[in-house]
Amino acid sequence: MNADLGSPRELTGLQRRRALYQPDLPPCLEGTRVRVELGDPTTTIDPKCADIVAQAFPHTFGQKLVHFLESNTMVSDTQVIEEHPPIRVGVLFSGRQSPGGHNVIWGTYDAMKAQNPHNVLLGFVGGTEGLFAKKTLEITDDVLSSYKNQGGFDLLGRTVDQIRTTEQVNAAMSTCCDLSLDGLIIIGGVTSNSDAAQLAETFAKHNCKTKVTGVPVTLSGDLKNQFVETTVGFDTVCKVNSQLISNVCLDAVSAGKYYYFVRLMGGKASHVAFECALQSHPNMVILGEEVALSKLTLMEITNKICEGVEARAAQGKYHGVLLIPEGLIESIPEMYALIQEINNLHSNNIPEDEIPSQLSPWAAALFKFLPPFIRRELVLHQESDNSAQLSQIDTEQLLAHLVEAEMNKRTKEGNYKGRKFSSVCHFFGSQARGSLPSNFDCNYAYVLGHICVQLVATGLNGYMATVTNLKDSTNKWRCAAVPLTAMMSVRRHLRGPGAVPIGRPVIHPSPVDNRRP
Amino acid sequence: MNADLGSPRELTGLQRRRALYQPDLPPCLEGTRVRVELGDPTTTIDPKCADIVAQAFPHTFGQKLVHFLESNTMVSDTQVIEEHPPIRVGVLFSGRQSPGGHNVIWGTYDAMKAQNPHNVLLGFVGGTEGLFAKKTLEITDDVLSSYKNQGGFDLLGRTVDQIRTTEQVNAAMSTCCDLSLDGLIIIGGVTSNSDAAQLAETFAKHNCKTKVTGVPVTLSGDLKNQFVETTVGFDTVCKVNSQLISNVCLDAVSAGKYYYFVRLMGGKASHVAFECALQSHPNMVILGEEVALSKLTLMEITNKICEGVEARAAQGKYHGVLLIPEGLIESIPEMYALIQEINNLHSNNIPEDEIPSQLSPWAAALFKFLPPFIRRELVLHQESDNSAQLSQIDTEQLLAHLVEAEMNKRTKEGNYKGRKFSSVCHFFGSQARGSLPSNFDCNYAYVLGHICVQLVATGLNGYMATVTNLKDSTNKWRCAAVPLTAMMSVRRHLRGPGAVPIGRPVIHPSPVDNRRP
Repeated sequence: MNADLGSPRELTGLQRRRALYQPDLPPCLEGTRVRVELGDPTTTIDPKCADIVAQAFPHTFGQKLVHFLESNTMVSDTQVIEEHPPIRVGVLFSGRQSPGGHNVIWGTYDAMKAQNPHNVLLGFVGGTEGLFAKKTLEITDDVLSSYKNQGGFDLLGRTVDQIRTTEQVNAAMSTCCDLSLDGLIIIGGVTSNSDAAQLAETFAKHNCKTKVTGVPVTLSGDLKNQFVETTVGFDTVCKVNSQLISNVCLDAVSAGKYYYFVRLMGGKASHVAFECALQSHPNMVILGEEVALSKLTLMEITNKICEGVEARAAQGKYHGVLLIPEGLIESIPEMYALIQEINNLHSNNIPEDEIPSQLSPWAAALFKFLPPFIRRELVLHQESDNSAQLSQIDTEQLLAHLVEAEMNKRTKEGNYKGRKFSSVCHFFGSQARGSLPSNFDCNYAYVLGHICVQLVATGLNGYMATVTNLKDSTNKWRCAAVPLTAMMSVRRHLRGPGAVPIGRPVIHPSPVDNRRP
Repeated sequence: MNADLGSPRELTGLQRRRALYQPDLPPCLEGTRVRVELGDPTTTIDPKCADIVAQAFPHTFGQKLVHFLESNTMVSDTQVIEEHPPIRVGVLFSGRQSPGGHNVIWGTYDAMKAQNPHNVLLGFVGGTEGLFAKKTLEITDDVLSSYKNQGGFDLLGRTVDQIRTTEQVNAAMSTCCDLSLDGLIIIGGVTSNSDAAQLAETFAKHNCKTKVTGVPVTLSGDLKNQFVETTVGFDTVCKVNSQLISNVCLDAVSAGKYYYFVRLMGGKASHVAFECALQSHPNMVILGEEVALSKLTLMEITNKICEGVEARAAQGKYHGVLLIPEGLIESIPEMYALIQEINNLHSNNIPEDEIPSQLSPWAAALFKFLPPFIRRELVLHQESDNSAQLSQIDTEQLLAHLVEAEMNKRTKEGNYKGRKFSSVCHFFGSQARGSLPSNFDCNYAYVLGHICVQLVATGLNGYMATVTNLKDSTNKWRCAAVPLTAMMSVRRHLRGPGAVPIGRPVIHPSPVDNRRP
């Protein structure tokens, strides 16, 4: 277990000042009386998958939408929570740390203590591993004091970020029973919320009293659908990255001699790269979704960049900034196929050094074409999940390498007469992910924490806490909760009526919507 | 010429707000009357080199120190500048862009216009290339308005950053004569200020009326001696980097599974890494000066890191943050020798792909030991100066690679039983270098700009504008100027009385002072 977790932090002046910020609450969550309105029963976001999801989640499928309203609002079909017998709730981080995560815990704590001072909030130290091993830290004013409005997930940490195998699910259930938890709050992205749904179903099936709640916290911003507008951390990460990208742009134009290839952490979807491009105005952004839609090859992408370099050279410009989403590599069809082959070989326990010789002739040819440093990164076996693997592939260096080779070739052939192409590569990940959360993320996370408590108090299981109307000021935010199963779908093999569903129902990351209007 | 330079910038909200900041001036520079006090004649910071410097700089060696005092202060041996006939001054950036550089130009402009509205300030577009080619932009209120307190060097840009060859010096002199410049202000680090000294000497020798002034602006902080306390940009870059490193530290402890190897731009000396370590408390910092002093080999450094990894593993910690100065690679004696051999082969026009076969047996063995990506970077020929070469060598990846190999070996041999070592590498360069300057750098640069004007108005040639007592508030800053020759020295081959001087006199970068008290 990570020995640095859970201890009081020594805050810097800036952090101390940040800790003073008091997040806003919308009126519906103020005070201890909250009206819970039950809405329509749900199916799933993809009606074609409803049957499959219903079958996989017999106990938690089809639950009603929930809205939280001010207690003085007169509405029909509502119940007012007035009495608050003491409850016990567990909370854990699962998935990549995201600025604002700590405020979910703070919001949960404040809402619980306001309801009943005897309520107990237990944090699982080391995320999922802490859950399995029953390692807890009771959240108190003292514990929280140095984590309010602070970045990172270091109050509790995170580990394998997975509650999926029978062994893991059983360990989680036994912990929740042993600790007599009324609620379990799982803070994370698409994968962790899919696991939360599975856990809720299992608990319901086994009459375990613990109600499971998911909270949408991921810097990637890919947990997004008709119910969820954005995730905690996305706002901060895009702002911090955009600031750094702007600095790089300024630096690029000052020296006028380098192209900067900046890869941005953000998972498979390109939300972070897209939002950062809108905020910082780089010279080019490559969206994975565009590449996938147009089925661009690695060489086509390379040529597109080279065309940009040539067009700029014609204007006397030999510098520029390109944004590359972390997940781009998997959006290139040929690279995706190669990565799939390598992953299959890993699953069959083929050792890393034998992988190249076991590839299909087609994949072997592509593999051989790639520069050695990328080959090495591709065959590296990852102990953690797939997004960790993505983060380890230096796609920005691969592209810089290919563009340089192509520009040199064009020079040699006399097709390019400008100055030599030079590049500098960057990966913007932890330096933004670990930053202080923005006011928006502080508020959003804190409000979500409050909603979690309402869900547990109402006895609702298998829900995600949600807030809509986020573009407005906090006092106009609409607080709600949506059954996790309502966000699920199943991937299909082909489009059309003969489409065959593959895989199990999960919450999928939403791509950037690049359909032309 | 870089076509993006000199045009009005469209400022963001944050930049607009930053532009409103009005830098402070110490009392001695307020108003249009400044007393100039001449102090003692100077020699050089290294008395052993005085003769050599005197010989190389017959016209500009031994000039007196200059102090600027409030005009109402009664002191002997002073002159008061009262009348201000119109003057023409040129200014250029030379060397790596550094936050605050624009404020030198702003300060110069304000001081010139306060003295006489007919004064003309010309900026050289494209730095040294602009100087040689007489490409100027007249600095006006309009031009300046979107560059006040802003980062980057993009008002004028920079290019080859060198005024050294006879051809370059003659081109500079002919520009200064043709434009009838009273003064030439060169904004840069050790190399550019050494060039400034040479230019001043040449101008004096040829009775060119242009007075040359150097301004200490470099993010590296290595232009530091008994006269110069720090350089413009160092404060900002260390603060921004430290913030990012702190974010990485928080991220590291949250996930608890990676070692972050962070390389920091900052030239040969380790000032940036050292200052950032003091501000951000990483787990380890490797100072090039320590490595050079202890003559550590690459494997000894690797083993030291591995010891740290093992010690932390024993405490259940599998994460950490290491800071690596950009110049570390040259501080490792064996690597320095290899780089020298490669540079010599480059000087003899040996093509890149033939370099490995031309190395001495000893260097060839080391070269072969290095991973392929480092080999490729080492033989890459650099068009620009040596520090550009340094920035292109991924020392952090080299060390991460060697540490991983060593930890795997220890695991195999049964000497290490902890979890697998994993690393993430970062290079923090442009993202900090291009940031908005701190208040300190805004003030410091603005004040230096004012001093430059006093120097030109007083007719002093071959000086550097300096400010001391910088740790105090601006109103206690002491403004002065020091002959550039007084900061020069000559490298010696061996220590002791038989030491043979090598190379020409220049201003050398100051290392971090790691002598034990």
